[in-house]
Amino acid sequence: MRVKNLAELEKILARKRTLTTKAESVIDAPEKVDVPQLRIIGLDVALRCTGWGIIDARAHNKQAAVDCGVIKTDSKAAVSECLRRLAGGVRELVELYKPDIAAMEGGFFCRNVRTAVVLGAARGVVIATLAEKKIPVHEYAPRKIKQAICGFGNASKPQVALLVSQMLNIQTDKMAFDSTDALAMALTHAQLLNIAQGIGIPDPI
Amino acid sequence: MRVKNLAELEKILARKRTLTTKAESVIDAPEKVDVPQLRIIGLDVALRCTGWGIIDARAHNKQAAVDCGVIKTDSKAAVSECLRRLAGGVRELVELYKPDIAAMEGGFFCRNVRTAVVLGAARGVVIATLAEKKIPVHEYAPRKIKQAICGFGNASKPQVALLVSQMLNIQTDKMAFDSTDALAMALTHAQLLNIAQGIGIPDPI
Repeated sequence: MRVKNLAELEKILARKRTLTTKAESVIDAPEKVDVPQLRIIGLDVALRCTGWGIIDARAHNKQAAVDCGVIKTDSKAAVSECLRRLAGGVRELVELYKPDIAAMEGGFFCRNVRTAVVLGAARGVVIATLAEKKIPVHEYAPRKIKQAICGFGNASKPQVALLVSQMLNIQTDKMAFDSTDALAMALTHAQLLNIAQGIGIPDPI
Repeated sequence: MRVKNLAELEKILARKRTLTTKAESVIDAPEKVDVPQLRIIGLDVALRCTGWGIIDARAHNKQAAVDCGVIKTDSKAAVSECLRRLAGGVRELVELYKPDIAAMEGGFFCRNVRTAVVLGAARGVVIATLAEKKIPVHEYAPRKIKQAICGFGNASKPQVALLVSQMLNIQTDKMAFDSTDALAMALTHAQLLNIAQGIGIPDPI
């Protein structure tokens, strides 16, 4: 750009200076936006007793418990009835708490094919219900969950419950292990989100 | 019973005769009620390609084909997407054709636990969707289906398709084996209903 005289150049430089100062002031200003928050639902799926736990994950590895419980069906109920109630229960939870993402156990080892088919049925129902509500599902191996929560892969259920209680600052004495396990799954996902910008997180299934 | 005189005995005998004749006439009367009809949906469940076939079963072992097809998902689609579409597909079929009862394959043998979990997931989704619509599901072992349709338990898929085509009087040349297998499942249930008043039918799952 060519200017005709010095006065014009002075004007342009003055304008530029003002713009730069403004931009810098914007960068230096403290962040006043809301801290993004992710609501995660953890699900410990089984045919007759599915544990669930919901947490809110915030920046700087801070998590808060929202609610937890179990979806239970009678031991005499037919398989089809159990699956119907499981689907209905998960649908109700999603409508009530509106989670953004779900974490489940996967890659487990099960010797009996018949058991695998039944457990697979319960898992399928939960995954399909979450998919209908457009909630991505992430799977974690049981060992990875125990490692993320307790630091070692062979932790027992009471050990997992103790660490969950410490991390979320809640009482877990009277909770079913299905619920604390579900909270542990949600916490695993929240923790991996904080490590190296979530590089360790597997793709949703 | 003791009678006082012959006249009284005559009276009693006459009354009995009238009653017997009435009862016989009721039995001999031709059935004028509508022939009950049962709509059966057969489902050959898999994760990415589920065959379905619907028949109307009438008295005297008469069956008529209603419709058949496959619920297919892309081979690259995620597991959760496949399960979501499967649930949606079955729900649509039930709303469109309003079947009374469903027949599925069960008690199969599968060596790989991972495959069993995936197949179980698809089965679970279908069973839960049918249970939500209050449709009872009956399971039949693959061997039992082949025996009911072809007369021997080792029949191949083309043999099953051929017999299905003859029993329902339809062309099955251009149909997928998933569809003909599904029709075979529905036919198995219809045939067992006609044998000894359905004694061989297993309880719904």
